[in-house]
Amino acid sequence: MVPASTLAAGSVGIAETRHLDLPGPLSLDCGRELSGVRIAYETYGTLSPRRDNVILVCHALSGDAHAAGRSAERPAAGTRDGFGAEDRDGAAGGALGWWDGMIGPGKAFDTDRYFVVSTNLLGGCRGTTGPSSPNPETGAPYGSAFPVITVADMVRAQRAFLDALGVERLAAVAGGSLGGMQALEWATRYPDQVDSIVVIASTHALQPQGVAWNAIAREAIMRDPAWCGGDYYGTGSAPDAGMGVARMVGHITYLSAPALHDKFGRRLQSADDLRYTLTEPEFEVESYLRHQADSFVKRFDANTYLTLSRALTYFDLARGHGGSLERALGGISARTLLITFSSDWLYPPAASQEIDAALRALGKPTELHLIDAPYGHDCFLLEEERQTPIVRRFLAGG
Amino acid sequence: MVPASTLAAGSVGIAETRHLDLPGPLSLDCGRELSGVRIAYETYGTLSPRRDNVILVCHALSGDAHAAGRSAERPAAGTRDGFGAEDRDGAAGGALGWWDGMIGPGKAFDTDRYFVVSTNLLGGCRGTTGPSSPNPETGAPYGSAFPVITVADMVRAQRAFLDALGVERLAAVAGGSLGGMQALEWATRYPDQVDSIVVIASTHALQPQGVAWNAIAREAIMRDPAWCGGDYYGTGSAPDAGMGVARMVGHITYLSAPALHDKFGRRLQSADDLRYTLTEPEFEVESYLRHQADSFVKRFDANTYLTLSRALTYFDLARGHGGSLERALGGISARTLLITFSSDWLYPPAASQEIDAALRALGKPTELHLIDAPYGHDCFLLEEERQTPIVRRFLAGG
Repeated sequence: MVPASTLAAGSVGIAETRHLDLPGPLSLDCGRELSGVRIAYETYGTLSPRRDNVILVCHALSGDAHAAGRSAERPAAGTRDGFGAEDRDGAAGGALGWWDGMIGPGKAFDTDRYFVVSTNLLGGCRGTTGPSSPNPETGAPYGSAFPVITVADMVRAQRAFLDALGVERLAAVAGGSLGGMQALEWATRYPDQVDSIVVIASTHALQPQGVAWNAIAREAIMRDPAWCGGDYYGTGSAPDAGMGVARMVGHITYLSAPALHDKFGRRLQSADDLRYTLTEPEFEVESYLRHQADSFVKRFDANTYLTLSRALTYFDLARGHGGSLERALGGISARTLLITFSSDWLYPPAASQEIDAALRALGKPTELHLIDAPYGHDCFLLEEERQTPIVRRFLAGG
Repeated sequence: MVPASTLAAGSVGIAETRHLDLPGPLSLDCGRELSGVRIAYETYGTLSPRRDNVILVCHALSGDAHAAGRSAERPAAGTRDGFGAEDRDGAAGGALGWWDGMIGPGKAFDTDRYFVVSTNLLGGCRGTTGPSSPNPETGAPYGSAFPVITVADMVRAQRAFLDALGVERLAAVAGGSLGGMQALEWATRYPDQVDSIVVIASTHALQPQGVAWNAIAREAIMRDPAWCGGDYYGTGSAPDAGMGVARMVGHITYLSAPALHDKFGRRLQSADDLRYTLTEPEFEVESYLRHQADSFVKRFDANTYLTLSRALTYFDLARGHGGSLERALGGISARTLLITFSSDWLYPPAASQEIDAALRALGKPTELHLIDAPYGHDCFLLEEERQTPIVRRFLAGG
């Protein structure tokens, strides 16, 4: 597979992460309010005079505002910020955005035509207010005092941010995984402000097995004594051991069993034979897991992991509508594009098919593309080449 | 599903775990020797005068010697020792054996006809020598000084134990999961001493995804500071937090996604609504995971978990034969019965099909039964009723 970033289409160039402080407090689903919320964001392309060409892209659990181009702040690393897809083009400049293959001149989200906006999620650790941010009431990091938030809260924060930016309508909201949940939430919460949504490798409600994987990842963090009930900031320590395990669980659920077979098989670290050790990796896949864990804990905050993981398990479009997806989607007016991947067992195609069927039953414009690809949930970051024509055609049909 | 233990077939009654000390040292694959090995075992039925009716049953990761009947030592608990199948019949007496539905008068392994022997594995924590046993050299528990062992080592220990018991030949070796690996190892290591093997929900080599899940479980234990590099005995503490996470990972891999859907769905703990908490379970499946973790750490040793998990990832019948399963099975003379389950994604049917194909190509007697059942790897402990006629017919055909 050719990395999309080396295809003919261009780059947005050097991207700078900026910050905006919301003017008012944010009301949350849990009943609390958050004041002094700061949003980290990047924009690519040019806002049209009529302000009708805005696409909001929403990141997944481990992403951030830096979705495209080369970071002005962060040096190039070995991996992108998404789910570990490699930064392979070796071009000059800082770290490549997590969705660089999809955002840029001539790409799926074409910055020659659209003004693409990307924010770090509420609860994040990359510039937007989250558990590691200073609590205005104490001046110290929130830690355990940070509220438990929902996908709706994230979307409320994005709405308030766009208000402050002077953007009323969105030509599209797009995202994969947790990002797709935000797109769905936008379309149902603000139906008259969203023209279309692009929902990739996502769901209206995480299946019970996904709820369980997320619970296990959070348990691994919270059972680490260094977590200190969430108040580890300033202790000189952090629950890196537990978050490493959480990340390992994540990686295996993002990949498919055949992809693991093709990538690692049962190859040993030592060419000769077994070394008979419990503490050192024997299989290449064991070494890969350790590497992924070690690199992740250097760039991610454990409380943000807990917060976003909890939010994505809560997300359930039909919950407030007697369990009826049709009723939940009844008010939607956006055109809907759903993309799903055959080997994605964490966000299986069935959920997208259910959304598509409900929208069809309601007579609403929807299209579903099931892409046959072997990489599991990671496909949404790897199969950019095959998604591009689908997304371009969909956006052009508006 | 009716628990097999309440079917017409009978019980072996009260079962007592006995112990036998191996007379000589045991040579291990890693090059070390273990002296003073003790084997915990139970037997059911009567040894024939010709000693030709012995069936060795081999347990999986979390089992023990108490395979059938009511324990003379341990009180009845809420769960059996297998993978959490419930002890539902409420009869008087101690804990029910982990394979009670399969072993007894008139059952799959019919104690009216066979003398069934069950041992706790080498490396175990239920009476057989393992990491928590006293090291003869120091008098203190082995801890980190316990050798890294293999499935072949477990089988060598069983062979030495049966020698001491005066049993030369086995009518059958039977087991599920790691137990099935032992049966395969028996048939290839001691081909002229095994008449038949019953290999259930097992494999000739764990797939890479299974290697990864096991690595994650072990990481969760070893990253717990209370593990102390394996030398936690006598510290007043144990890596219960990490082993709890390991057990949670195990449980989700033993079940299928549809089974989790049917059993828990997305039902909340609170009938009303979300409680907005990170630390307390919100979903029923989260509460289930915590319960499974908490009950497991009370009865199992973390170093045994590490040891057995490592052994089952090492197991690879073809490794010493240039990767050829046919060559690995070339010397086998036992009749082979393979049972596998459609929804078992940890030990997928493909591996049993590969074993069956290799044996067929070699012209050796083999039969494979793929049972269509929804419970995942746990099927081997739950689908006793459907396995029983298959096993009885196979054993009678000898």
